[in-house]
Amino acid sequence: MVSIVIKIDSSSLSNPERIEQIAKRIIDEKKRGRNVIVVVPNMDLMEDKYLQLAKLLSDKPSKRELHVIESTNAQIASSLLAIAIQKRGFKAISLAGWQAGIETIESNKNVLIDQMNPEYIIDRLKNGEIVIVAGSQGVDRKNNILTLGEGGAETTAVAIAVALGAEHIEIYTEQDGIYTADPSIVKEARKLKQITYDEMLELANLGSRIVHPRAVELAKTYELPLIVRSSFGTTQGTLIKGDVDMEKNIVVRGVAYESEIIRLTVGYESYEQSSLANIFTTLADYNINVDIIVQAVIDGVKPTVSFSIAKEDFAEAIKVLEKNKEQLGFSFADFEVGLSKVSIVGSGMVSNPGVAARMFDRLRKENILVKMVSTSEIKVSVVVPQDDMVHAANVLHDEFNLVEELV
Amino acid sequence: MVSIVIKIDSSSLSNPERIEQIAKRIIDEKKRGRNVIVVVPNMDLMEDKYLQLAKLLSDKPSKRELHVIESTNAQIASSLLAIAIQKRGFKAISLAGWQAGIETIESNKNVLIDQMNPEYIIDRLKNGEIVIVAGSQGVDRKNNILTLGEGGAETTAVAIAVALGAEHIEIYTEQDGIYTADPSIVKEARKLKQITYDEMLELANLGSRIVHPRAVELAKTYELPLIVRSSFGTTQGTLIKGDVDMEKNIVVRGVAYESEIIRLTVGYESYEQSSLANIFTTLADYNINVDIIVQAVIDGVKPTVSFSIAKEDFAEAIKVLEKNKEQLGFSFADFEVGLSKVSIVGSGMVSNPGVAARMFDRLRKENILVKMVSTSEIKVSVVVPQDDMVHAANVLHDEFNLVEELV
Repeated sequence: MVSIVIKIDSSSLSNPERIEQIAKRIIDEKKRGRNVIVVVPNMDLMEDKYLQLAKLLSDKPSKRELHVIESTNAQIASSLLAIAIQKRGFKAISLAGWQAGIETIESNKNVLIDQMNPEYIIDRLKNGEIVIVAGSQGVDRKNNILTLGEGGAETTAVAIAVALGAEHIEIYTEQDGIYTADPSIVKEARKLKQITYDEMLELANLGSRIVHPRAVELAKTYELPLIVRSSFGTTQGTLIKGDVDMEKNIVVRGVAYESEIIRLTVGYESYEQSSLANIFTTLADYNINVDIIVQAVIDGVKPTVSFSIAKEDFAEAIKVLEKNKEQLGFSFADFEVGLSKVSIVGSGMVSNPGVAARMFDRLRKENILVKMVSTSEIKVSVVVPQDDMVHAANVLHDEFNLVEELV
Repeated sequence: MVSIVIKIDSSSLSNPERIEQIAKRIIDEKKRGRNVIVVVPNMDLMEDKYLQLAKLLSDKPSKRELHVIESTNAQIASSLLAIAIQKRGFKAISLAGWQAGIETIESNKNVLIDQMNPEYIIDRLKNGEIVIVAGSQGVDRKNNILTLGEGGAETTAVAIAVALGAEHIEIYTEQDGIYTADPSIVKEARKLKQITYDEMLELANLGSRIVHPRAVELAKTYELPLIVRSSFGTTQGTLIKGDVDMEKNIVVRGVAYESEIIRLTVGYESYEQSSLANIFTTLADYNINVDIIVQAVIDGVKPTVSFSIAKEDFAEAIKVLEKNKEQLGFSFADFEVGLSKVSIVGSGMVSNPGVAARMFDRLRKENILVKMVSTSEIKVSVVVPQDDMVHAANVLHDEFNLVEELV
């Protein structure tokens, strides 16, 4: 029997009407003769209240206990959904992570899914039940409850789908799919029918609100197709898979952006003193995420390294650099605020060497100054003044014909 | 190493200050060199919210799912308490029922503790941790979460104490012990130093608010002493055990009451038609709890059966009797409202045959009309007009010298 794993979004559980609505949709899937497994995310509301209380009781509450408090949320949500399904005459059962056979492990401060024992879920499915799993949680080998952090519910859904050999997984969201660009800044943005795992990963800031890169990576590893679709209607969503149809010679599949970034530049007296490894290791130690890195070593000119960071990390980054100035060996540091990043993403780029040039050419024609550049096999990113970001995204969307019908 | 099991009350978890206060008390017990296991009851607040939501989603939400929702409450409470203890530098761990090794079973609509596997708790204790168990919950053999219902937290505490071979168990309450009578109606009421399991069971309506009969029965079976004491101070509480010191020849240890009861009377045309079994089986089928039963069979007079029920069951009882009138064979039914029950309890009665007579004599002198009587080996109950209840309780408290110092 074909199994389908559906990851629903928290807005689907925000009130009784939405719970009933989503229950009906799940039942519709069941009526199609499929085994249905639903993964429920956290609901937020009361979790916040008790996490606040925990922080009142201790400035450093133990992680183990915070995991326990966090986990109860999705557990209640999955029970409520099971009740709404049962009310309509269908069999349903809610399962906490430990009941669903999800083994988690702590590694480098992150909680990962270690193993998945689907026997109990399979039993329930054989019994005709719709299985509702509290997502983003599991137990370690000592039966401690661990929660998975960001993207945990999608990742749980992928892990269950892999263990059950499900044909695909559906991610219900408030949006109805993945778009060629953010419709709020590019009016012409269109919904994609298909996208590859890698493109999805590169479009992170378009897609991460919908499917966390962590889940996309796991799905990619096991070649499990993901469908992103609306939790409201039944319109066609976007299919994420290994390779997509290349008709019409589409090279760029989406335009992404990050609106507030800051460029830091560090200068050295001589080439010998510059150590990229040192500076980026130090920043990583303080959890400062560096994005684009540009190193300029020009003969007769003092070497500099420029890198972009998110606005939130700015104050901390300056502090870290000052504190470690001597050890890191640089002689001056500078920064530029008010920048944005705009990227084009598409797996067709690999075989189309002219894509980056075409991008720069169009931006030059539009008088948009490019401050930094970074390229990968399927993405080209430019850092531009923040005021030009929306314009840049729109002209690139136009340049690469993303307004036309896509396959 | 000596182990102590403490069952705390929900008021101890009602705000951060109280949680910190109770954390300190638990740590004090640990400092005495004991293994400490704490059993936490439900906290009510958010459970209500989600149970209401469940009822919005379905008029008959499945019990299994309601158990899940109910169980999360004590889980959060136990985590918060663990955090407050850890904050003070002591090791602590919260355990849900399934983690603590509590196996539950459903039997006749009730959830009971079936088995207790204390290995994991023992491991944690060996590791020096204070173990905080979410009370009133466990898992069945299929790993379904079940909650224990009323008195579940105390019963869990007793079960853990028995499995660990603890010397005794402490029940923290808002009151500081068991009293000879309810201090709100008998001003002279005094705290008892000791009381037997059986007396405690008979004093149910004095004691049930503090220790549920279910937990007392389990403690009695395993001869586990219970200490009832205040969750605020460290004053001596009341010790509940198998036999208590009988000095001063105390025959009555307490006066109990039930303020609102109703007497129903059913009359038959002939003795042959009257069937006690039928009528009480029928009432039991509708979950109507019958307390005192008085059957009068007088030669030449039509037989009658009178019985007392709680006020809440009145409407339902009348409906059941009318509906089943023919089948039950009675010819008329009557009722009397505005009654109360007053009882005296004491294991000394067994060897003091005059106790009931002394009770009736005093009530007659006080012009209190006795409507029904029921006796057991350690209790005599009378049904009196509601207006006389407080007076009756006070004069009986005086009659049996309960104001004097008790052992």
